[in-house]
Amino acid sequence: MPPARPGDPVAAIDTPALLVDLDALEANIAAMAAFARQAGLALRPHAKTHKCVEIARRQLAAGAVGLCCQKVSEAEALLPSGVGDLLVSNHIVGVEKLARLAALARRARVTTLTADAAHVALLSAAAIAHGVTFEVLVEIDAGDDRMGLCAQDLLPVARAVAATPGLVLRGLQAYSGPLQHVRDAGARAAAAAETARRAARARAILEAEGLPCPLITGGGTGSFLDDGTAGVLNEIQPGSYVFMDADYARNRDRGGGPYRPFAQSLFVRTAVLRARSDGVSYVDAGAKALNLDCGMPEVAGRGDLSFTKASDEQGRIEAADPALAPALGEALDLVPSHCDPTVALYDTVVAIRRGRVEALWPVEGRGART
Amino acid sequence: MPPARPGDPVAAIDTPALLVDLDALEANIAAMAAFARQAGLALRPHAKTHKCVEIARRQLAAGAVGLCCQKVSEAEALLPSGVGDLLVSNHIVGVEKLARLAALARRARVTTLTADAAHVALLSAAAIAHGVTFEVLVEIDAGDDRMGLCAQDLLPVARAVAATPGLVLRGLQAYSGPLQHVRDAGARAAAAAETARRAARARAILEAEGLPCPLITGGGTGSFLDDGTAGVLNEIQPGSYVFMDADYARNRDRGGGPYRPFAQSLFVRTAVLRARSDGVSYVDAGAKALNLDCGMPEVAGRGDLSFTKASDEQGRIEAADPALAPALGEALDLVPSHCDPTVALYDTVVAIRRGRVEALWPVEGRGART
Repeated sequence: MPPARPGDPVAAIDTPALLVDLDALEANIAAMAAFARQAGLALRPHAKTHKCVEIARRQLAAGAVGLCCQKVSEAEALLPSGVGDLLVSNHIVGVEKLARLAALARRARVTTLTADAAHVALLSAAAIAHGVTFEVLVEIDAGDDRMGLCAQDLLPVARAVAATPGLVLRGLQAYSGPLQHVRDAGARAAAAAETARRAARARAILEAEGLPCPLITGGGTGSFLDDGTAGVLNEIQPGSYVFMDADYARNRDRGGGPYRPFAQSLFVRTAVLRARSDGVSYVDAGAKALNLDCGMPEVAGRGDLSFTKASDEQGRIEAADPALAPALGEALDLVPSHCDPTVALYDTVVAIRRGRVEALWPVEGRGART
Repeated sequence: MPPARPGDPVAAIDTPALLVDLDALEANIAAMAAFARQAGLALRPHAKTHKCVEIARRQLAAGAVGLCCQKVSEAEALLPSGVGDLLVSNHIVGVEKLARLAALARRARVTTLTADAAHVALLSAAAIAHGVTFEVLVEIDAGDDRMGLCAQDLLPVARAVAATPGLVLRGLQAYSGPLQHVRDAGARAAAAAETARRAARARAILEAEGLPCPLITGGGTGSFLDDGTAGVLNEIQPGSYVFMDADYARNRDRGGGPYRPFAQSLFVRTAVLRARSDGVSYVDAGAKALNLDCGMPEVAGRGDLSFTKASDEQGRIEAADPALAPALGEALDLVPSHCDPTVALYDTVVAIRRGRVEALWPVEGRGART
């Protein structure tokens, strides 16, 4: 059953529900597009954040060159956005998944990642078997110590990509996840500069070999300002900027205040199931309605209320002043602590504007994890 | 696309996928049913754990008196199991949800919770408006300091339920969530005894007023042995026992060993996307494939591998001996740290037996949170 109908006032939304404020969403999409334009960077938003065709369409209409997806099935779900240039920013393994990646490559330009010569052979075999070409970025260790290669291991893999039938070397993936959440702005800028240095070194290694490197992509919502000034990436792939979350607000900006380059557009609307006489309330959103890996959510516009604990289907709210605690049945809007995996819990986005439901958008990529 | 077909070997399952080992599941269902029978307790399994009609059917066939659900929509999703006695073990608020609860009450015996006289009035209004009867349990504070009432506040609410048209007082809900995860067996038994004392006191308060209290329900997978011996509850509502998880295994049993009264039947199957030369691997299951509120998962049968970190779609595995690290493409079975919210991420359970896929079961209640 849909949580609301277009035209409903927000008070009519059945809870818990995932809300997106359209004024804020549109402003965020426009602001990041303007930044990228001014900085001379291509913008390839990461669609793992929203998994939603309607939001992807708006990002493409604002000038995005394409999309990032994290899974083949997520990319499949987002094809109806009209995306023509897809980066599946992950290492795709398995005959079935590679066959589906090949099917995608007949419908869009498809780029994907590798960091292993054995994996290069798998990519090539699939491309040849299905008569397509995969463009490939070699992933470097961008300072995150994850799946990427350090400089001394780069060349054999890049050479293998360039030399292998069915594959085209497109450049480098230089994305650091942890960097996005470095709290101090100076430390974050330094980490972004280190990522840029590593990317520049990797580019020099490829160029010295005569290998092509037209694309160096990375950067995210926490680092995009620094990525722009560092001058090595020529494409950024931020995702969370469309929504923002309480964890990004815990980053500091250059003046020491909360990091809020974009407006909070995402909320989980919840209602009070139990209003205890001591000012403790329980709401109908818990661990199945909110991802809590980055801590508890905040209560929008109610700094006097703290969401202190969650069980599967309930959240505990404590009021600084029990006399001002919310009443039985009262709705509250929560700011999720981590936007991406919270959105991935929902089938529907309730798109609101100025207190009314404007549209219901399916989250087409919900559950797309293969 | 389904992650496998019946008859497939487990090696053919597309990853990440949610697996249930049927031998273990069936043994768990039988063992809890046998315990309840021998202890003279009614068994009402909590279906929030699995949200799956096929599993509910097996629990009912083994002698369960009915099911618990946590949400109205979850109860709706599980009606095809044939359940005739449903406890919606939550405080249902909102005109729309109460109308749906009333619709359920025309198809099954429906019991629900309250702890607030104002809420009693809402329940009554809905029952009268829709021409049904709701049976009601008053929730007591079972030692968990959540939504229940302490003894001195109990009577006005119980009286209100008993006196209000459309409602029938059925007894007491005395469930403590935190108690289930008290690590030390002695401390857990003491906490269960405290819950029993509170329930006995509440029953005495009702009986002194001549109010009915035929049902006292509570207890879970962590406390059921103690609940049986405490002798106050006459019904238990465990959920996790069908699957178990790594968090329950962190409880201690009475001998000081890991708490394993049931077999681990639930796994998330994942595959290696990147096998670094230093023995660090990355798999295709992260925070969107595993709930991590209770910590990282374990790798089944591989005590030498540690799942140390997760990003949205990737998990990091560290090998004690790099020479024994898993290879690119190799599948691993993870034991989730928290079963309920992990299952709630999936649309499909892949039911396996002795290395083969036996069936695919829809998780009908996935996303049922209203």
